[in-house]
Amino acid sequence: MDINNLAACVDAGWTLVGAALVFFMQAGFAMVETGFTRAKNAGNIIMKNLMDFSLGTPIFWILGFGIMFGTASPFFGGFDFFTDGAVGAGHDWTTLIFQTVFCATAATIVSGSMAERTKFSAYCAYSMVISAVIYPVSGHWIWGGGWLAEMGFHDFAGSTAVHMVGGVAALVGASILGPRIGKYTKDGKARAIPGHSLTLGALGCFILWFCWFGFNGGSTVALSGDGAEVASRVFVTTNLAAAVATVTVMIITWVRYKKPDVSMTLNGSLAGLVAITAGCDVVTPAGSAIIGICAGFAVVFGIEFVDQKLKIDDPVGAVGVHCINGALGTILTGLFAYYDGAEVNPIGALYGGGFHFFGIQVLGVAAVIAWVAVAMTIVFLIIKHTMGLRVSREEELMGLDKPEHGLASAYADFMSIPQVLGTKAGEAAAKEAVPVPLNQAIPVSRISTEGSSSGIHKVSIVGKQSRIEALKEAMEEIGVTGMTVTNVAGFGQQKGAAEYYRGAKVEATLLPKIKAEVIVTAVPVETVVEAAKKALYTGHIGDGKIFIYDVVDVVKVRTGETGYDALQD
Amino acid sequence: MDINNLAACVDAGWTLVGAALVFFMQAGFAMVETGFTRAKNAGNIIMKNLMDFSLGTPIFWILGFGIMFGTASPFFGGFDFFTDGAVGAGHDWTTLIFQTVFCATAATIVSGSMAERTKFSAYCAYSMVISAVIYPVSGHWIWGGGWLAEMGFHDFAGSTAVHMVGGVAALVGASILGPRIGKYTKDGKARAIPGHSLTLGALGCFILWFCWFGFNGGSTVALSGDGAEVASRVFVTTNLAAAVATVTVMIITWVRYKKPDVSMTLNGSLAGLVAITAGCDVVTPAGSAIIGICAGFAVVFGIEFVDQKLKIDDPVGAVGVHCINGALGTILTGLFAYYDGAEVNPIGALYGGGFHFFGIQVLGVAAVIAWVAVAMTIVFLIIKHTMGLRVSREEELMGLDKPEHGLASAYADFMSIPQVLGTKAGEAAAKEAVPVPLNQAIPVSRISTEGSSSGIHKVSIVGKQSRIEALKEAMEEIGVTGMTVTNVAGFGQQKGAAEYYRGAKVEATLLPKIKAEVIVTAVPVETVVEAAKKALYTGHIGDGKIFIYDVVDVVKVRTGETGYDALQD
Amino acid sequence: MDINNLAACVDAGWTLVGAALVFFMQAGFAMVETGFTRAKNAGNIIMKNLMDFSLGTPIFWILGFGIMFGTASPFFGGFDFFTDGAVGAGHDWTTLIFQTVFCATAATIVSGSMAERTKFSAYCAYSMVISAVIYPVSGHWIWGGGWLAEMGFHDFAGSTAVHMVGGVAALVGASILGPRIGKYTKDGKARAIPGHSLTLGALGCFILWFCWFGFNGGSTVALSGDGAEVASRVFVTTNLAAAVATVTVMIITWVRYKKPDVSMTLNGSLAGLVAITAGCDVVTPAGSAIIGICAGFAVVFGIEFVDQKLKIDDPVGAVGVHCINGALGTILTGLFAYYDGAEVNPIGALYGGGFHFFGIQVLGVAAVIAWVAVAMTIVFLIIKHTMGLRVSREEELMGLDKPEHGLASAYADFMSIPQVLGTKAGEAAAKEAVPVPLNQAIPVSRISTEGSSSGIHKVSIVGKQSRIEALKEAMEEIGVTGMTVTNVAGFGQQKGAAEYYRGAKVEATLLPKIKAEVIVTAVPVETVVEAAKKALYTGHIGDGKIFIYDVVDVVKVRTGETGYDALQD
Repeated sequence: MDINNLAACVDAGWTLVGAALVFFMQAGFAMVETGFTRAKNAGNIIMKNLMDFSLGTPIFWILGFGIMFGTASPFFGGFDFFTDGAVGAGHDWTTLIFQTVFCATAATIVSGSMAERTKFSAYCAYSMVISAVIYPVSGHWIWGGGWLAEMGFHDFAGSTAVHMVGGVAALVGASILGPRIGKYTKDGKARAIPGHSLTLGALGCFILWFCWFGFNGGSTVALSGDGAEVASRVFVTTNLAAAVATVTVMIITWVRYKKPDVSMTLNGSLAGLVAITAGCDVVTPAGSAIIGICAGFAVVFGIEFVDQKLKIDDPVGAVGVHCINGALGTILTGLFAYYDGAEVNPIGALYGGGFHFFGIQVLGVAAVIAWVAVAMTIVFLIIKHTMGLRVSREEELMGLDKPEHGLASAYADFMSIPQVLGTKAGEAAAKEAVPVPLNQAIPVSRISTEGSSSGIHKVSIVGKQSRIEALKEAMEEIGVTGMTVTNVAGFGQQKGAAEYYRGAKVEATLLPKIKAEVIVTAVPVETVVEAAKKALYTGHIGDGKIFIYDVVDVVKVRTGETGYDALQD
Repeated sequence: MDINNLAACVDAGWTLVGAALVFFMQAGFAMVETGFTRAKNAGNIIMKNLMDFSLGTPIFWILGFGIMFGTASPFFGGFDFFTDGAVGAGHDWTTLIFQTVFCATAATIVSGSMAERTKFSAYCAYSMVISAVIYPVSGHWIWGGGWLAEMGFHDFAGSTAVHMVGGVAALVGASILGPRIGKYTKDGKARAIPGHSLTLGALGCFILWFCWFGFNGGSTVALSGDGAEVASRVFVTTNLAAAVATVTVMIITWVRYKKPDVSMTLNGSLAGLVAITAGCDVVTPAGSAIIGICAGFAVVFGIEFVDQKLKIDDPVGAVGVHCINGALGTILTGLFAYYDGAEVNPIGALYGGGFHFFGIQVLGVAAVIAWVAVAMTIVFLIIKHTMGLRVSREEELMGLDKPEHGLASAYADFMSIPQVLGTKAGEAAAKEAVPVPLNQAIPVSRISTEGSSSGIHKVSIVGKQSRIEALKEAMEEIGVTGMTVTNVAGFGQQKGAAEYYRGAKVEATLLPKIKAEVIVTAVPVETVVEAAKKALYTGHIGDGKIFIYDVVDVVKVRTGETGYDALQD
Repeated sequence: MDINNLAACVDAGWTLVGAALVFFMQAGFAMVETGFTRAKNAGNIIMKNLMDFSLGTPIFWILGFGIMFGTASPFFGGFDFFTDGAVGAGHDWTTLIFQTVFCATAATIVSGSMAERTKFSAYCAYSMVISAVIYPVSGHWIWGGGWLAEMGFHDFAGSTAVHMVGGVAALVGASILGPRIGKYTKDGKARAIPGHSLTLGALGCFILWFCWFGFNGGSTVALSGDGAEVASRVFVTTNLAAAVATVTVMIITWVRYKKPDVSMTLNGSLAGLVAITAGCDVVTPAGSAIIGICAGFAVVFGIEFVDQKLKIDDPVGAVGVHCINGALGTILTGLFAYYDGAEVNPIGALYGGGFHFFGIQVLGVAAVIAWVAVAMTIVFLIIKHTMGLRVSREEELMGLDKPEHGLASAYADFMSIPQVLGTKAGEAAAKEAVPVPLNQAIPVSRISTEGSSSGIHKVSIVGKQSRIEALKEAMEEIGVTGMTVTNVAGFGQQKGAAEYYRGAKVEATLLPKIKAEVIVTAVPVETVVEAAKKALYTGHIGDGKIFIYDVVDVVKVRTGETGYDALQD
């Protein structure tokens, strides 16, 4: 047995382990994106994450690999359909699988910023374009022997080639798509729309951190020679940057928001990982720690900037994490580069290496931003004006699981409170989304309210969940100051539409409804009923019913007041 | 240091990484099976997945390994208790651990198809038999130097040896067990019973896909020599087949059910992985893509066939994924085999290799089906007629967590809506399961309904969750057209039974109840009360109470009608 | 290329894969600890798990590594700030990352036993001390060439050095902290407080088991030479001990609690893994199986002992798993040691090796217990008397997510039932926590109850979730025998406090409330109202309201009784 042969086998094994870990990032992204968004879109987001990988894999094999690793020109690798030239002869299977999983990482980043409102078919379309063309072209420049590679641009594992490419596409996409309904106030203030499972989001972050050891460490694509030493250093710098970024974000949020913010801190870990990716092989541990600190600041202020200044709605912070920190990390490599493989080669500006290398890093970042921004703008605009990029307002409000996948809920056994409920963002969403056809509402017949010796009535309103915010506002307008809302299941004339689950029909017999109760004495019952009716009316079966009851008396606990007084807040 | 020695070390290391990944499949199976079934059985399914591995590990060491890898005969390896002969001398630890985790994979597949109704003790029993005898015998034929191995049967990583063995056992088991209550209509139509967490199910699929790189890639059990090249190719073909199968299923479901089905598409990924497992080392990427397409069709139509034609209730699609695609992938290897290790050796029928090899593949599949089907039928029937295979109807309806493990809920902080609620399947389940002892019900004393000037009453019924469907049907029968149902917690005479959680007593003080409200005017209150009473009555404490209230008036939102008219749908 | 060089590369690669897996244990611990505790603390626990690693990584690099691996003395390694001496020169990056992830494992164990009541700032503080000093000092003794290493103490992968260090700190911390509110009855009986997601807890256990192959297997830090053979044996013994411990616990709980306990059995797997860690490289498979059996007994009786005899509240069983089994496994190595690397060297007492080695194992365990117990007692007491160790009673009852992180819920779309609800433990918690200021309550004005012809009234009480147990008790005291409780969302004068989610303000518009309904006839309405008022009164806005309705009639289903009789239980 030949030692060079054995070394090559060892190197392939190392790269394959890395490839498996990078594949597993798909699980991490799926959990982060699902956990940080709302339950009503969970199935849709899972599906998008699954499909970008599943579509990207064959597309990259058929088309992308050739564009990226061909030698046609410094700008475009050329065509090598089905990777026949490169791999068909029996070579380089390792490279194909390793590059495939990297490509899919770039593609999956976009789903986060465009979550909760993008059409599934549009998602499939642009995801394929990214894997087929967008990623391979800039990838060719950086890793395929293209013009940036020739200039000495250094992006070890893809801060720019993978994360920034995904992040710029995410930025462009979210911008063209527009914010989710309810995300911004009329005067443009950003509202919080909390995710539905921080636990799954956190699990996703831990999975991503774990897999990043394969992403960065595996990018040596070798253990023999200097491979092991570089890989070891990469493990240290990757881990240190992530940890320091996490600590930095925790401290920043503690200072800025008074309390350490869980989900932002989790974003901090990812920001550190993205930022260190370009230079993980050339910086010292101290350098990586400083990069981690920078990443922490960049992600907090970056997310705030995108959210509150640019007013681009990025539900999971994909732009702040991948775009901003991808660029930042690549540029910082120009300052902190100290090693070259196992040798010391302090070309970073901070080590006295001058600004030549730094300039190349900046140029590379700028060029890739330009390419991706222009190309993806064209792609998104074409999709927008042909197949459509965004679901309808009704579908968005309902959640994408049902209209896009016929899935009543990703959590069938848990009745969730309506996602429009409970926050100002939700309130605004509901109002913006469903213009109330006030004038169409048929007038109510005379209501009987005699017989109450106390003069106090309970009006109990059972209606569609999506009308709850409109109803709440209607009550406030007529001076009703309190309301109690309950999730109920209603059974009546309105039948659920048939959907399929694994090929079998799902027949709903009970539909989720809202019961809202108000107790009134000063405000006439007729006024309440009329207002409620207007808020609920759509003219379709299932609009709901309003019930009126006598109340014998009411007591306010804090003051001990009863009757009329108890209801005057 | 000797280079052959180092190569052997590298090979062992590669195999061990594979073994760790194959172990982690247990997490994937646990998440898939739990997520795709109902919350009330979550603890039970977790426990079954944990125990098949934990029982299988010592059993395979004590008995199974010897049967599989002994050299006694081409049909049965022989006995080598505690793996003393093979490993006791200090050799082959790697083989033992690698084979143990494979054995456990076969065993765990069965729990999916038999979920939500199998007795835990029965599960432990047959799981041990699979690990001790069933899997090792056919494993000996294929991988232990038995008769199929001698004939040239090719099953690289276990489409047949692992997945089809598990899948056939799953089919036999689900068939003997019978469907879950409510799964089929009286005229045999399959009903959908959605799982409780698609997110966890999806996470499980991603984990499985990740681990499959260890399952298939690690099955080279070598990196040196041709090992690395074969492993690289295996990574490519495995990933490509899975991705293409996923895309195929997405398209099929989009066409057939009008919308891309999330959970079926997730099954598609697994189907592709199972199908490519037999031939992942011998097919080309193009071959693997075609196998992926075939797997996609096989899983959709296979699941529909099992569910709707065979009427075998397989909650997670284990038969469609593992049995059908295990067989399919093994047979397709006979068509698509092109390589032999690092060499080209096109023995597949499609490459002009004739049908000899293809015939051997078919024969092997048939022989293993016969062995597992016959042996497992005997095993299940013995269990059925001794310890019992299925829980009681009451236990099944309640969910297995409580009666089998004393676990009130796997999700203690979330009150779930009763799993019988909200679908036709659930409705049927409740009716079938709890025959109402109508004639036993004590007649109700005279009810006072005077004093309502409107003539409208609310009847509010608080009772057991499990009676909700019976109640709904009773209301429909007497002409009540609407009902509002709320989950409530009841506190009264009925005390919860003491259960243990981690050794400490759990004392329930509030019990989950259902409150159903109907508003009536045309239907007399007495009729409603009598019907409700019959639907709720069991004669035990906790049957519930019925309250009657006056309603001042009622308004139907859509029409503006009030009073009597508002209630006439 | 030199073969020794290649071997060193292979060894580094193996160790790095191990390091990645050990990192991933953080995800396992996060899931176990979150799943086994309540939903209201989920964000906090996630954050603690994230921060112990993120703080520990730089601290260990700055300080801990030098203390552990320096050569200053047998008791203290010395200072090597920023690991400059060891790694700065370009060596040993592999050791640094491998040791960093081990250190973080020790630190993260503590968060489990101290969950649901420890201040986040205090957690950060003591977590840093563990990583900086506590773990490195005893680590130096055992692995850094210190006095125990010199004596021949054997702790291969850290039953003592990692798990027992974490477990002793967990014991000391939980003891000084005191039990969670409601955990013990007045006469000291332990109550069960079930976790909120057994599924996530189980996933965490599977992740930990998977990663343990890296923890124990990677601890060979070599594949070349004997490395691969030892690593293979380690895989076998680790897996077998875990499996057998799991089976043992299942059987014990089946016998003791009548039913196999899911969460305790999951603890059993971890116990087996901890116990085998010290001797996984020197015991036979049979030895590992026996160690697994011992671990099973130790964890069940250990958890019961800590919970019920010591009355130390350890929500996730960290003391039973890590402390008790860490010590046990280390000592049992003294009985079962049979190998030395690839050679047979039966120094275990059971193989006739005498008690010298056994004695060293006992001494080592005792010395480390002494060190950690003393040092951590000092650390916790200093924290307790300076920054404070425990949150306030109000914060604990509310759950730590909101007061510590401004997080309304880690599960925003799922309204959870109040965690104080539904068990005796919860009931006691509520009563202990919120002393009712009875005397402050303002008397209620005269209540109007005329007009009910039936003499039956419904009193509907809407108030804060945290008062539900006090309310229930108040009702029992005045003879009300039934109550129906519903989760509702209230909208009124009480506005939610502004919190931040990812930098954007969260404005709550609906607050979670409880609606409790009692139906009375014998008990005067005034009495009910007065009692409810006292139970709810705090003097703040949001104390709630009480509504009184007429009831026309009531029917008890079981007996058919109506009116007065139906309400006399």
